[in-house]
Amino acid sequence: MFLKLLGTAAGGGVPQWNCACALCDLCRRDPERISPRLQTQAMISANGTRWFLINASPDLRQQIEANRELWPSAHLGRRNTPIAGIVLTTADLDQVLGLLLLREFQPLTVYATGLVRRVLEANSFFRMLTRVPNQLAWVEITPGVPFSLDGVMCTPMPLSDSLPYYAREFSGDDRGEAGLGLIFNSGQARDSGQTRVAYTPSLPAITDELLAAYASCDVILVDGTFWSDAELNRTQAGTPLARSIGHIPMSGEDGTIAQLAGITRPRKLFTHINNTNPALDRSSPEATFVRESGWELGHDGWQLN
Amino acid sequence: MFLKLLGTAAGGGVPQWNCACALCDLCRRDPERISPRLQTQAMISANGTRWFLINASPDLRQQIEANRELWPSAHLGRRNTPIAGIVLTTADLDQVLGLLLLREFQPLTVYATGLVRRVLEANSFFRMLTRVPNQLAWVEITPGVPFSLDGVMCTPMPLSDSLPYYAREFSGDDRGEAGLGLIFNSGQARDSGQTRVAYTPSLPAITDELLAAYASCDVILVDGTFWSDAELNRTQAGTPLARSIGHIPMSGEDGTIAQLAGITRPRKLFTHINNTNPALDRSSPEATFVRESGWELGHDGWQLN
Repeated sequence: MFLKLLGTAAGGGVPQWNCACALCDLCRRDPERISPRLQTQAMISANGTRWFLINASPDLRQQIEANRELWPSAHLGRRNTPIAGIVLTTADLDQVLGLLLLREFQPLTVYATGLVRRVLEANSFFRMLTRVPNQLAWVEITPGVPFSLDGVMCTPMPLSDSLPYYAREFSGDDRGEAGLGLIFNSGQARDSGQTRVAYTPSLPAITDELLAAYASCDVILVDGTFWSDAELNRTQAGTPLARSIGHIPMSGEDGTIAQLAGITRPRKLFTHINNTNPALDRSSPEATFVRESGWELGHDGWQLN
Repeated sequence: MFLKLLGTAAGGGVPQWNCACALCDLCRRDPERISPRLQTQAMISANGTRWFLINASPDLRQQIEANRELWPSAHLGRRNTPIAGIVLTTADLDQVLGLLLLREFQPLTVYATGLVRRVLEANSFFRMLTRVPNQLAWVEITPGVPFSLDGVMCTPMPLSDSLPYYAREFSGDDRGEAGLGLIFNSGQARDSGQTRVAYTPSLPAITDELLAAYASCDVILVDGTFWSDAELNRTQAGTPLARSIGHIPMSGEDGTIAQLAGITRPRKLFTHINNTNPALDRSSPEATFVRESGWELGHDGWQLN
């Protein structure tokens, strides 16, 4: 199983276009100290040849060109792609806009819950992906029900019932279809070297079920959006608290670091890191605390070995 | 008047994500010979401090970070932008998707025809730009009626009544509101050094009115999407001819080069160049023909001096 992170920032990226906070400013002036990060994007492959995108970030064009695994091959004709499909965990713009960059009449397979599919199909822009027959093939996925990505087994876990603001008229008893975590396993038997990875870049709450899943993994990739509940609000008045928009902060008694302190088996990484998170600065006390707590910040280009 | 091109490729960019044609392949292997190009984006300013974006490309996040004129300033508080507004000439995805990257609760002013505004307001994603009061201010523009951008006068010219596929239920007697060209002039009197620039990255036909406008300009930026009518179709079967999708090709008896051969006053540049256009290759006979006909290919970073 191959897995690579092509972007590790929350929506807006690092730096963020309209942000001159100390962190964004330092990132522009001293990228050695605060690395620029593209918006969150991951990809996974059973064989290192055909890849499945995990969500589709607005930076996807740049991410494809920066990662030659995703380049088309001149040996396969003029138009082709090693992208075998896209798995959506949410309908958030920062995780779906990239689909609209994959036009050019290329057939695509998109794995999504019925709810996420309905939200996107209701948006007129998505007609651009259905201009020719068989351009867009949907595969409906269901929380709790594993499916195969070329042999990598992927189990969606229900994490959120909350839809993005633009889709607020969609709703219902959708049992976690709005926001998923994904557990990947390499498909071999557990005792013969199976690898298990959890991908949860957006994490509103940690259930006992998720805790058990994390404990069974070799690597967990966890929501690192915010360091503290109030940091976004301190940067820009009128913006919401972290928990109210579905992100457990890293720090504090009930933050992710504390809640997952007992999970000792897997390698623990944060991804989806917001431009306001002080841990972005390598020389900050927050970054030191992250490291000393046994966590890493995922970075663009990080790969599972 | 300051004007800069931040992207000069047609939709998809150069190289294009799923294209392994000889040109895209060469661009990836030898970027000295075929320069990578971001998707078409321009910006204009009366003073070099406040900028107006001309359309909003899907590559806008990358384009902002690559051009420090567009960075926010730490002296102006934590959240700010030198982007004073965005002028839309069309509702094409490749020219409007970037608006969705300018969220983060930042107030925006968008100049668009009533038709383009209605198309975008009907799209649910655009609700993300109206989450707080006064986040999005529309200024309605009308073909033929000049308006001021901090003193730079901008005259919209009606070029097309054709809406993108995703918006095909919108229509009407909209007298060129679907696709505009823009004529900028620096506002001083004509005989005291006024500068005039035409920006027409998408050009379905050249009317007498447009010809007269071009002849009055110092610089014209013209649709360079295709070299020939059939080139897209030759790269990918089932795709349309250049003229049928609103682009006069460069070459041929009725191509842009021939039709504008009599326009000798302005500096003539092509922009919005598709990845299939052989003139992208500096050492091609087509590139030589372009140069010898008195034209230039605009490039990312090109500036009006």
